[in-house]
Amino acid sequence: MFQSFEVTARPEQGPPRLRALRAELTVEGLDGFLVPRADAHQGEYVAAHDDRLAWLTGFTGSAGFCCVLHDVAGVFIDGRYRTQVKAQVAADYTPVPWPEVSLGNWLKEQLPAGGTVGFDAWLHTPDQIAQAEDTLKGTGIILRPCVNLVDRIWVDQPAPPMFPAKAHPIEFAGETHVEKRQRLAQGLREAHQKAAVITLPDSHNWLLNIRGADIARNPVAHGFAVLHDDATVDLFMALSKLDDLRPHLGGDVRCHAPEQFLDLLKTLSGPVRLDKQSVPVIVADTLGDVAVWGSDPCALPKACKNAAEINGSAQAHLRDGAALCELLAWLDQQPAGTITETQVVSRLEAARRKDNALQDISFETIAGTGPNGAIMHYRVTEETDSQLQDGHLIVLDSGGQYLDGTTDITRTVAIGTPPLEARAAFTRVLAGMIAMSRLRWPVGLAGCHIEAVGRMPLWLAGQDFDHGLGHGVGAYLSVHEGPQRLSRVSQVPLQPGMILSNEPGYYREGAFGIRIENLLVVREAPALSGGDDHRAMLDWETLSFAPIDRRLIDVTLLDAASLSWLNDYHAQVAEKIGPRVSPVTKLWLDSATAPL
Amino acid sequence: MFQSFEVTARPEQGPPRLRALRAELTVEGLDGFLVPRADAHQGEYVAAHDDRLAWLTGFTGSAGFCCVLHDVAGVFIDGRYRTQVKAQVAADYTPVPWPEVSLGNWLKEQLPAGGTVGFDAWLHTPDQIAQAEDTLKGTGIILRPCVNLVDRIWVDQPAPPMFPAKAHPIEFAGETHVEKRQRLAQGLREAHQKAAVITLPDSHNWLLNIRGADIARNPVAHGFAVLHDDATVDLFMALSKLDDLRPHLGGDVRCHAPEQFLDLLKTLSGPVRLDKQSVPVIVADTLGDVAVWGSDPCALPKACKNAAEINGSAQAHLRDGAALCELLAWLDQQPAGTITETQVVSRLEAARRKDNALQDISFETIAGTGPNGAIMHYRVTEETDSQLQDGHLIVLDSGGQYLDGTTDITRTVAIGTPPLEARAAFTRVLAGMIAMSRLRWPVGLAGCHIEAVGRMPLWLAGQDFDHGLGHGVGAYLSVHEGPQRLSRVSQVPLQPGMILSNEPGYYREGAFGIRIENLLVVREAPALSGGDDHRAMLDWETLSFAPIDRRLIDVTLLDAASLSWLNDYHAQVAEKIGPRVSPVTKLWLDSATAPL
Repeated sequence: MFQSFEVTARPEQGPPRLRALRAELTVEGLDGFLVPRADAHQGEYVAAHDDRLAWLTGFTGSAGFCCVLHDVAGVFIDGRYRTQVKAQVAADYTPVPWPEVSLGNWLKEQLPAGGTVGFDAWLHTPDQIAQAEDTLKGTGIILRPCVNLVDRIWVDQPAPPMFPAKAHPIEFAGETHVEKRQRLAQGLREAHQKAAVITLPDSHNWLLNIRGADIARNPVAHGFAVLHDDATVDLFMALSKLDDLRPHLGGDVRCHAPEQFLDLLKTLSGPVRLDKQSVPVIVADTLGDVAVWGSDPCALPKACKNAAEINGSAQAHLRDGAALCELLAWLDQQPAGTITETQVVSRLEAARRKDNALQDISFETIAGTGPNGAIMHYRVTEETDSQLQDGHLIVLDSGGQYLDGTTDITRTVAIGTPPLEARAAFTRVLAGMIAMSRLRWPVGLAGCHIEAVGRMPLWLAGQDFDHGLGHGVGAYLSVHEGPQRLSRVSQVPLQPGMILSNEPGYYREGAFGIRIENLLVVREAPALSGGDDHRAMLDWETLSFAPIDRRLIDVTLLDAASLSWLNDYHAQVAEKIGPRVSPVTKLWLDSATAPL
Repeated sequence: MFQSFEVTARPEQGPPRLRALRAELTVEGLDGFLVPRADAHQGEYVAAHDDRLAWLTGFTGSAGFCCVLHDVAGVFIDGRYRTQVKAQVAADYTPVPWPEVSLGNWLKEQLPAGGTVGFDAWLHTPDQIAQAEDTLKGTGIILRPCVNLVDRIWVDQPAPPMFPAKAHPIEFAGETHVEKRQRLAQGLREAHQKAAVITLPDSHNWLLNIRGADIARNPVAHGFAVLHDDATVDLFMALSKLDDLRPHLGGDVRCHAPEQFLDLLKTLSGPVRLDKQSVPVIVADTLGDVAVWGSDPCALPKACKNAAEINGSAQAHLRDGAALCELLAWLDQQPAGTITETQVVSRLEAARRKDNALQDISFETIAGTGPNGAIMHYRVTEETDSQLQDGHLIVLDSGGQYLDGTTDITRTVAIGTPPLEARAAFTRVLAGMIAMSRLRWPVGLAGCHIEAVGRMPLWLAGQDFDHGLGHGVGAYLSVHEGPQRLSRVSQVPLQPGMILSNEPGYYREGAFGIRIENLLVVREAPALSGGDDHRAMLDWETLSFAPIDRRLIDVTLLDAASLSWLNDYHAQVAEKIGPRVSPVTKLWLDSATAPL
C-alpha cells in the first residue's frame, strides 16, 4: 500500500533535537538557524532525506519553516495549519502566524540587539532571503549562508533518494525532447539569453521526457539542468539514475554528477536566466553578474498540454473514475457506524491498484468524516481514524499517478441522513462548481478574473471557503503545478491545454466539510450562433467522471441551467464509466446518475 | 443649455496648424514635439485653454496624444476612438493604435538615426516620460522639456478659466476640512513624510470642501496644493477665485498665486509624497531628491463617501430619476420616425434643469439611436443627428451635477418593435447588471475579482463588450473618479462608501447598442441567517431609480432570482419616483414598472 496511517512525527522528539541544534549554534558562533520545509528544488514534496522541519519540530505540514534562536524557536505556519501545529510540536516551539508575521519582523522583535542567523544556501531562494533582508535593513541582524546544522546532528538521516529515472514514452509526452529543447532555445535566443538554469525537477523532467521516483507521490528524478541557447542541455543528476537513459537522452544532453553543477555555472557567460522564486541562493551567488531574472522557461510550455497529454489524461481519468465508483458503490452498502476512514482509504487505493498503469497515488488520500471533513488538509492516522456515522458527510479527496496522466478528484458523500444545513451548503458548492464548469470567457483572462464564478452561490448565502478554487495539474507530474491557478492572486492568463482543478468547498468547524472537485482542461471555445464573430473565447472540457451525491442536492436551490448541466454530466458518467465497472457497481451507478 | 451640438473641430483646420508647429520645431532645433490631451492636472476633462490636441489635430476624444515630427505626425488613440479619429483628422495626421504601439517604439521606428523630442513638463507625468525613456535607452532619441510650442502658435488661445470657487456646504460634505486635513496629516506622520503635493483639482477641492467651475461638467477649481504633516495646507490658486473663501478656509490654509508653486516646492525638506501617475514632471524635477513616490493622499478617503455624501447622492438620484422618467414617458408618446437624438438630449436637459440644485450636466449626454448606439462614446452633433426609427434601440447615457451629488444613469429604450436578437442581448446585459447588483462578497476583493459577474450571461452566449463594467463616481465631483473601478485591471479593494457604476452593455457595429447603468454604493453586508459568523462581507445599495424597458426583456432568459430582483427594483422605482413626477408620467411609470 502506498499510503500509511502511521504517526510519522511526535511532539516529544523535538526538545532533545532542539538542544542539540542550539549546541551547534554556539559552536558556529551563530544566534540562529533557519530550517525550511524545502529541499533544493523548492517543490511541494520532499524526500525523507530533506524532511528536516518535521524531524526537528514534529510539524508535518506541507509549508512552513522554523527559526531556531538560543531562547526561542518559532515555527512559522500558514492559516491551514494553525490547529495541526499545536498538536504536533512540543511547548519548546512557538507557533508563529505566517505570512501575517514575516521572518524579518519576528527577528526584529526577538533579536533587538542584532545578531547573525545562518541558513543553508541550497534551501532558500533569492526572493525569500531578499525579502527578509529588506525588512532587516539597519537592525544589525544579518542572514549568513552556512553549513546545514540539522544535517550535522541528524545521525540517522536517510540517504538522498537514488531511484533510476526512466524515459517517458512519446505516446504520452506527445513531443520529443529534441523538439522541446529547440522550441525553448528559440525563446532564449529571442530574449538574448545564452542559457537558463532549471532547478525544478518537474521542469527538467518534462523537458527531457523523463520521470523518476525520488519522492513519493511525485514521479520526478531529482537533479539540476542548464538549457543553452543552442538547444543542448547539461543535466546534473546522480549518474546511477541515468544508466538506462543514455540512448533516450542522446548526445545533446550532457550528463554530469550533481557535484559538478556549481563548477559548470562558473563557466557560463552571457545573460543566464534564473527564476528568483525557485533557484537556490547558492546558484544565484555562483552566477553573480551573469544572472538575469526571468521565469523558468519550462513552466508555461509544460502547463499547456498537447493533444497526447490531454488524451492521456482523459484516458487516465476514465479508469480512475471507474476505480472511484467501485469504492463509492461499496461505501453506500456499508451501514452507518460500521467502517472507519482508514478502511475507506485502503479500499480506494486497492481499487486504483487494479490498474496496471498506476504508479502511485498522487497525494495522501483525504478521507475526513463528520468534523474531520472540516479540516481542509486532513490526513487520517491510526490516532485520528474515525467511524463514518449517521448524519456525517465524508470528504474524499484522492488521485492517482498513471503513466498517461495525473488525477485528482473529490466527492462528498452522505452517511445516513445528512443535516439539512449541510444539504443546502452542498447544493451551493455544487452550483459554484457547475457555474465554473459551464463558463466561457474571452481570451486573456487569468484565474483572478474568473474565480468568483465558483464562489458566488456561497457568497449570496453569506458563506465562503478559505482555499483557492483550483490549481494546475501536471501530465504524470505534480498534482499541484503552476503557473496557472484559479485563485484571486493568479494573474497568469489561461491558455488552451492547461489542466486545472475546480474544487469549491465549504467547511463548518467541528461539524462537517464539503468539497466537490473535477479536473478541467482549457480549450478554444466552439463558435456559438449569435455570438461575436471577432471574439476569441475559451471554455472547459471536463476530465473527471464520477457521480455527485444526489442525496445531498436540494434541487430547489439550483437554477434550470445548472440542473440541466448536472443531468447531462451524470448521463456522461453513466455512459463513460458504466462499461468499466463491475455488474454490482453498474447497478449502483445507474441509480446514482439518474436524472434529477 | 449646457450641451451644444456644434461640430467643435474639423479636419481641415489641422494642416495649416501642423505646418506652423513644424516651423517652430526648426526654430527650436527639435526633431519633434509632444501634444497631449492633458492639462497640468491630468484630469479627464480640460478647459478650452488646454484643449491643444483638438485644436491642432481636430481629434476630440477624451484620451490620446499627438507626436509631431518633421515628416510625420502620429495621433495615438485607444480602441474606443479608432473610427472617430479617421473622421476627425486630415490625412496629414497618422492614427497610431495605442497602447499597442507605445510612444517609445513608434519613435524608434520614425527616428532611426536618433533625435530630440520636446515636451511641456507641466503636461506629462514622471511615469509617462520614464516609460518612454526606458524604451528609448540606447537609441540616441532623447525627450527634453521645452516651452509649449502649441501655445506659441495658437494666436486666439482662450485664457485659462477664472471662475470663482465656492465653499461646499458641510451638510453635503459631511466632514470639515479641518477634520480632513488632520486625518490625512496623521497618515503623513505615520509614513514619516513631511508633506504631500496634490495636483489633482478634485483631490484638493475635496480636501478643502470647495468647488469651482473651471471646466465644464466637472465642478472643480484649478490649482495646486501642498498638505503638510502639521495639517496646514499651501493652496496655489488664482487669488481672484478665492475672494469669498478666506473665512471658509481659515488661517491654516495659506493661499498663494499659482506662479509661486514651484518656488515653495524648492523650500520643502524631508520626504515629500508625490503620485508619479498624476504630478507634472516639472514638480518632480523641482523637488528632486526630496520626493518619494506614493499615492495621492486624498484619493482613497475621497472615494469612501461618508453618510452625508451617500445620503446627498441618494437624494440627488431620486430627483434625477424623476427628471429622467419625465423624458422617458414623453419619449414613449412619440411615434417612431418623428424625433431626433438632439431633441431627446435637449428635452432631457430641460427636465433636469427644473431642479434648482442642478449645477451642470455631469457629461455630454449620449443619445445614440440605431447604429449610433453601437458607438460607445457617441456625442451627437448637428451632422450626425439621426431620427429615432421603428426597430431602433436608443442608448441614453446621462447625468447631472447636483449640489448634493453626481449622477450617471443609462437606459436603453425600444423604438417601435425591436429586433429579436437585440431583445435577447438586452436580457443578457440586464442579467449581468442584476447579478452584480445582487452580489455579496468577502471584504478585501477588488474590481478585478468580481467584474466577471456582470459579464457572465453575455459570455455564455459568446458575447462581450469592450469597456469596463463600472467606474467610481464622486460626490458633486468627477463623474469618473478613482481609484476604485469594476475592471479587470483594478486591484484596489472595494470599501464601504465607494460609489461605482454598474453598466454592462452590448454593441453590434452598424446595428444597435445596449447599455444599462445604475450607480451603486458599497456597504457592509447585513448578516444572513446561516451565513459564516466570522466572515465580513460587503454588498451594494442601489442609488439609481428609473424603469428598465420591459419590452426589451425576454423573461425566459432570466432565472427566478433575477426576475424577482427586477420586480422588486421596479416596485421601488414606482414607490420612490412616483410621488415626484407629473400625473401623466405617473401613469406611464405605473405601467413601466408593473411586475413581469
